[in-house]
Amino acid sequence: MNPSILARRALALSAGPAGRHFPFEFDPEVVLFDSGFASPAVLPDLTHFAQEALSRHRDEVLQYAPSQGHPELRQWLAEYMNEDGCNLSAAQVLVVNGAKNGLDLICRLLLEEGDTIVVTAPMYFTAIPIFRGHGAQFMEIGQDGEGLRVDVLEEALRRREQAGRPAPKFIYTVPDFHNPTGVTLSRARRVALVELAARRGIAVVEDNPYRRVRFEGEALPTLKSLDRGGWVLHVGTFSKLIAPGLRIGWVAADADVVSRLRQMKADGGTNPFVQRLVLEFCRSPDFAAHVRRVQTVYREHRDCMLAALRQELPQASVDVPAGGYYLWLEFDPRVDGDALARDAAAAGVNLIAGSRFFAGMGDVPRNHLRLSFSYASPAQIEAGVARLGRIVRQQEVR
Amino acid sequence: MNPSILARRALALSAGPAGRHFPFEFDPEVVLFDSGFASPAVLPDLTHFAQEALSRHRDEVLQYAPSQGHPELRQWLAEYMNEDGCNLSAAQVLVVNGAKNGLDLICRLLLEEGDTIVVTAPMYFTAIPIFRGHGAQFMEIGQDGEGLRVDVLEEALRRREQAGRPAPKFIYTVPDFHNPTGVTLSRARRVALVELAARRGIAVVEDNPYRRVRFEGEALPTLKSLDRGGWVLHVGTFSKLIAPGLRIGWVAADADVVSRLRQMKADGGTNPFVQRLVLEFCRSPDFAAHVRRVQTVYREHRDCMLAALRQELPQASVDVPAGGYYLWLEFDPRVDGDALARDAAAAGVNLIAGSRFFAGMGDVPRNHLRLSFSYASPAQIEAGVARLGRIVRQQEVR
Repeated sequence: MNPSILARRALALSAGPAGRHFPFEFDPEVVLFDSGFASPAVLPDLTHFAQEALSRHRDEVLQYAPSQGHPELRQWLAEYMNEDGCNLSAAQVLVVNGAKNGLDLICRLLLEEGDTIVVTAPMYFTAIPIFRGHGAQFMEIGQDGEGLRVDVLEEALRRREQAGRPAPKFIYTVPDFHNPTGVTLSRARRVALVELAARRGIAVVEDNPYRRVRFEGEALPTLKSLDRGGWVLHVGTFSKLIAPGLRIGWVAADADVVSRLRQMKADGGTNPFVQRLVLEFCRSPDFAAHVRRVQTVYREHRDCMLAALRQELPQASVDVPAGGYYLWLEFDPRVDGDALARDAAAAGVNLIAGSRFFAGMGDVPRNHLRLSFSYASPAQIEAGVARLGRIVRQQEVR
Repeated sequence: MNPSILARRALALSAGPAGRHFPFEFDPEVVLFDSGFASPAVLPDLTHFAQEALSRHRDEVLQYAPSQGHPELRQWLAEYMNEDGCNLSAAQVLVVNGAKNGLDLICRLLLEEGDTIVVTAPMYFTAIPIFRGHGAQFMEIGQDGEGLRVDVLEEALRRREQAGRPAPKFIYTVPDFHNPTGVTLSRARRVALVELAARRGIAVVEDNPYRRVRFEGEALPTLKSLDRGGWVLHVGTFSKLIAPGLRIGWVAADADVVSRLRQMKADGGTNPFVQRLVLEFCRSPDFAAHVRRVQTVYREHRDCMLAALRQELPQASVDVPAGGYYLWLEFDPRVDGDALARDAAAAGVNLIAGSRFFAGMGDVPRNHLRLSFSYASPAQIEAGVARLGRIVRQQEVR
């Protein structure tokens, strides 16, 4: 085939194979702090639920299924979110193939080539190519200890309006245990953000994969629970709470928005077998016990990594996240995080340089690292942080 | 949310709920000839394979997985197609969430708003909104007993070139047991089509869900097996051969095309648990036995429906397909298939009016019906065709 027939966006992509990323692609000695894999210690035993789904529900799970998702799972998800402050019906829930599929569909719903969206700086970096693939331009807004600077956003929107430019289409944010910073958006900012978006006629995409992976403290209201005008599209997933391999997420939004998203979800519906399996697991007593175990194990991982960092890397500053999968390390501005990440990989510690988490419309700071504490065991965390400490000390010597 | 912020294509979609379509939404008395559900009699027992996947391979199937698909499944699929005349490596295979997901990704790869594609008239109607959703214009080419009229296509392309218009981006066709007509593209036409496409620099999208659902006769070479210049993108699926609910399909194409499709597949990869389950089933002796059973059962269904039609609807002409799921009934040009389909539904026989299978750029003939023989049992087929015969006779009396 002659590449000249490719669409412009496809032509811009690399034609080569994917790089290494998965645990099975690395020597077991390599410590993986780079990605949000689940701890093997918390992967649940789903054999019983699969057995049930494939025997008792065989005629359901092996046939085509409704593209909006299993009616009972949508009902369960609506109730799950209603217990968390929302007021949803099953008609307001779309089951998707993981949160990324939800984000991709929301881009199809809202974006024309060249439209602007608001993102945090830094942001969840896997979303960057998804948004770019739909032709998005980025308006980056910084964060502080209370999360997204809603005041800065408000001022930026005002300036944009004064310049006669169209409003951004949506504001994308991870309000709970933000990826990569771990920060949780404060209650006052949540209220202000939802109010600002409605007033300005901008949708809010609330990406909330870590909502139940909370280690301490009271939950703050989801943006969706504060939404009165239907401006918030909530993206949920079981990837971080049950298992990434399930590829089951959901979008909660107004029924008419869900109806349009459903029609754009041109894949014949999310796997009905796995939907039934998840539904039976979530309805079982195993689910609550599993959530407690996830919280306990990842709290231990976080505490272990924090203790190791205080010991081995006192020169890095880190805020303590109340949940989620990640620590965000800030170094002296002269430290080159990109070089650090390369040296660490060469020494058998995989992590991601902070610079990769910026959509890159402005200056990109290079003095951060993101460390995931989800996959590595406590012993691996200690070994990996010790290796990282040696590398940083060597850099300082140079 | 104010709908004015929706993308143009989303705004064009219906904001209402989906219509009824699934067996569980109908009274058991209703005979379903309308859709390609599997016969409940051929749904395989996959419990053993799920058990294996979730226990022995738990760390693999519950984690994130490579977005191109499981390496062993891709290898198996390459060999499966190589036994069928191709010459593929695993790098040339992308695992997708069913064939529709593959078609959607191919549109992302190739289409800009307003691009033209070649389709058959009639065509697989579920593909129409997928193609339209990417802004496609349709060039419709008719078929005869040997399938797509490649000579007519060649002449249309020549006229288009003379008019100074750009070539279509791809030719979409179902060469084996075409949906809805059941016709199989002849060997000479296959050779001519692949040669014409390469000469003109047009991709060929070979959608081949029914390939192994052959009841008699020798298989003809796939378009992919005839492809020398990498112009053919083959879309395969297990939906029609194993079970629709698996949502596992694949695209076979050049490695650089597969690499770009992979990057546009922004869903975190196809479900790794179901990929492993399918891999283990396909490697087991159960697979060959299952394929034989599918062929036997659907041959019986086809023969049962043909016999009932000869008895009850001698006024309809129908070609005998050598495989697949459908019969395509042609009536006297004065018969209104749309009205027939409505009357049939009212009498408890669901089928699809032929007019819905045309992309609708030219005149749409209304004197056809598509009857699926896959889902209904032989007893239901006899009862449904008898009901349909009474309805047609009543229309004739009016």
